[in-house]
Amino acid sequence: MLQAVLAASARARAAPATLRLLSTAAPAAAAAAASNNNKNGTAIVLMNMGGPATLDEVEPFLGRLFGDPDIIPIPFQSKLGPWIAKNRTPKIKNQYAQIGGGSPIRMWTEKQGQMLERLLDETSPETAPHKSFVAFRYAAPLTDEAVRAVQDAGFTRAVAFTQYPQYSCSTTGSSLNELHRQLRVHDKDGTIQWSVIDRWPTHPKLVDAFLDRIQTALQQYPENERDSVVIVFSAHSLPMTVIERGDPYVHEVAATVQAVMDKLGHTHPYRLAWQSKVGPRAWMGPQTADVLEALGKKGHKNVLLVPIAFTSDHIETLFELDIEYGTEAREKWGLTGLKRAESLNDSPIFIEAMADVVKAHLARNVAASPLLQLQCPMCTKESCRDAKVYFTAYNATLQAKAKEPASTL
Amino acid sequence: MLQAVLAASARARAAPATLRLLSTAAPAAAAAAASNNNKNGTAIVLMNMGGPATLDEVEPFLGRLFGDPDIIPIPFQSKLGPWIAKNRTPKIKNQYAQIGGGSPIRMWTEKQGQMLERLLDETSPETAPHKSFVAFRYAAPLTDEAVRAVQDAGFTRAVAFTQYPQYSCSTTGSSLNELHRQLRVHDKDGTIQWSVIDRWPTHPKLVDAFLDRIQTALQQYPENERDSVVIVFSAHSLPMTVIERGDPYVHEVAATVQAVMDKLGHTHPYRLAWQSKVGPRAWMGPQTADVLEALGKKGHKNVLLVPIAFTSDHIETLFELDIEYGTEAREKWGLTGLKRAESLNDSPIFIEAMADVVKAHLARNVAASPLLQLQCPMCTKESCRDAKVYFTAYNATLQAKAKEPASTL
Repeated sequence: MLQAVLAASARARAAPATLRLLSTAAPAAAAAAASNNNKNGTAIVLMNMGGPATLDEVEPFLGRLFGDPDIIPIPFQSKLGPWIAKNRTPKIKNQYAQIGGGSPIRMWTEKQGQMLERLLDETSPETAPHKSFVAFRYAAPLTDEAVRAVQDAGFTRAVAFTQYPQYSCSTTGSSLNELHRQLRVHDKDGTIQWSVIDRWPTHPKLVDAFLDRIQTALQQYPENERDSVVIVFSAHSLPMTVIERGDPYVHEVAATVQAVMDKLGHTHPYRLAWQSKVGPRAWMGPQTADVLEALGKKGHKNVLLVPIAFTSDHIETLFELDIEYGTEAREKWGLTGLKRAESLNDSPIFIEAMADVVKAHLARNVAASPLLQLQCPMCTKESCRDAKVYFTAYNATLQAKAKEPASTL
Repeated sequence: MLQAVLAASARARAAPATLRLLSTAAPAAAAAAASNNNKNGTAIVLMNMGGPATLDEVEPFLGRLFGDPDIIPIPFQSKLGPWIAKNRTPKIKNQYAQIGGGSPIRMWTEKQGQMLERLLDETSPETAPHKSFVAFRYAAPLTDEAVRAVQDAGFTRAVAFTQYPQYSCSTTGSSLNELHRQLRVHDKDGTIQWSVIDRWPTHPKLVDAFLDRIQTALQQYPENERDSVVIVFSAHSLPMTVIERGDPYVHEVAATVQAVMDKLGHTHPYRLAWQSKVGPRAWMGPQTADVLEALGKKGHKNVLLVPIAFTSDHIETLFELDIEYGTEAREKWGLTGLKRAESLNDSPIFIEAMADVVKAHLARNVAASPLLQLQCPMCTKESCRDAKVYFTAYNATLQAKAKEPASTL
């Protein structure tokens, strides 16, 4: 067995260039866990950005956000980050106050997790029991808390499951980098075998879940106006510098949109727009607010906004789309028939999608997709490279295992 | 019957805002042709950019290209366009000389058209006979020639079929604007009933055709290196100003890539990159050449380039990818295993895709998809708006027809 693991490590070094060039040693987790060991069940760690649950949590939340070079690279980050966070706190606090005093994302994620556990226990009894954990990047429960909870519950098999369907280095990448850092502190011996679901932009049931929300929203228009509805998909934008480095997020969001419209049968005209740009740098466009204003100017009345990269409600849907853009669109831009498709939240179809993604991932018995191995072509970050190696090295172990004589399996 | 047409026109003016705001009168073609009249068969007009067939055609080709504000908006276009074209001619002539003295795109398009005719006559006898025509935007046969050829052949039903699977205002949009202009000159009475296939980025057989080319290319790698191949999809880039206006091209190209990788089963890591940027303005990135160089620097050897927006070979594949980037990549950037997937050209699967797209379009009996009705939100071009109205107005006629009592049908 050990020979197979060593041979696999050798093969890993010989094969993809991303791995070959590394100075980092093969991760302990991959070497220690040489089988898809989930006889004790499976921990499902739901990774997301998170949000402040109360107004008091706004400043620490912003502090972590502006302290993370994976999402907001700024010079003198350790000094400037807290300063920007402190400065922005009153404005952002006010926004959270307007949506009920905090972000509902923890509530939604925990609910999704519980629904997911139940469904997986039914549909994938061979990997049961399943228990969900929440690992937020900038709010409680943070990644270290999640890792310790997985350990305390005695799991030796865990799936890091991104709740961003489309991969960006700024989102899923940042979460994986943080998970990697925390595992090097809290699980030095690699007692937990990790695998990663890094993206699922066009999973058929995810597409169905979006479709269901869109169809429900379209039904709310009077029948004689329904055909005139323009669908505007909206996703969080990204600085062009990140896209220029080879970040695949924009492409994957576009793929989700196309898959949804293909399934809807292209009954309505649509555009994909990008929201939440901050600062003076160039970001991906067109911006959602500009698109809404321009459609109003062209005489459209009925626009259906569809958040396509956030799966649960948080400030970007409840404040930015509904209040900030929504008010202007209805009152100034003439979009009297502006509506927003409900976020996926606890949509049963969405929970089925989540369960299907996890079940298929566990059945494939791989550490991660080949795509996770490939660092963005123009990226030079060591943290990013090392996390990718850590989470994909187990693939080589599995390949070796598959090639062993059956008797040793 | 006439009443139905008039009612339909009234409805067209009452319904989508894009149509409602127009000063242009309802197009003659839509008013004249009130049924899907293809008892005389169907003309299929294949629209594409085209390319100079000989070196002498390079300057007039560039002259038309730099004279078209839909693709290259420049100040003082009528003066500056010819000047830029003349200046660039020696360089571009040299490039065409290196790929055999001219573009093969006319040869491929005519061949595709003939194969398409045969297949459609078999699979869609109710719309036969089918005859294909080529309408290039910047080289012979130009759009006016195509329109006159359709008329001379006695067709009263024609399909404008874009050979760009993904829609851009710079490509398909420009071709439709030119077709609209030519029809207003050469078919004032609307004797031909036109409908438009404006995009087909994720048609299953188009995806199969790309897949087949990729699988064939992957087989050319030694078995022990095959897993290490990184796939780089390459599409012509676009200025960010066009994207900011709401042009959907980038999103649709990304959707094609995702559909291809979904069907391939995500066996290889990949990126989508953008080629052929010119001038100092910001264009969509990352650039293909930069991605190749960066992958080489990271130690990759085996890269498979896949042209994903051009379906036939022309200068961007044969010179830019194969010679310009290819030579540097192999000699300087260390990509000793760089290969390029063959363009779709006369791939039988691609021809099946073309035929399926046309057959389904004819069966739906619509003028164009609802998406074509929606002008880019931030676009203010009248030519673009008018062409969209011209080519989609017939939808309203059809809707009216569907609502008439059966006896008058």
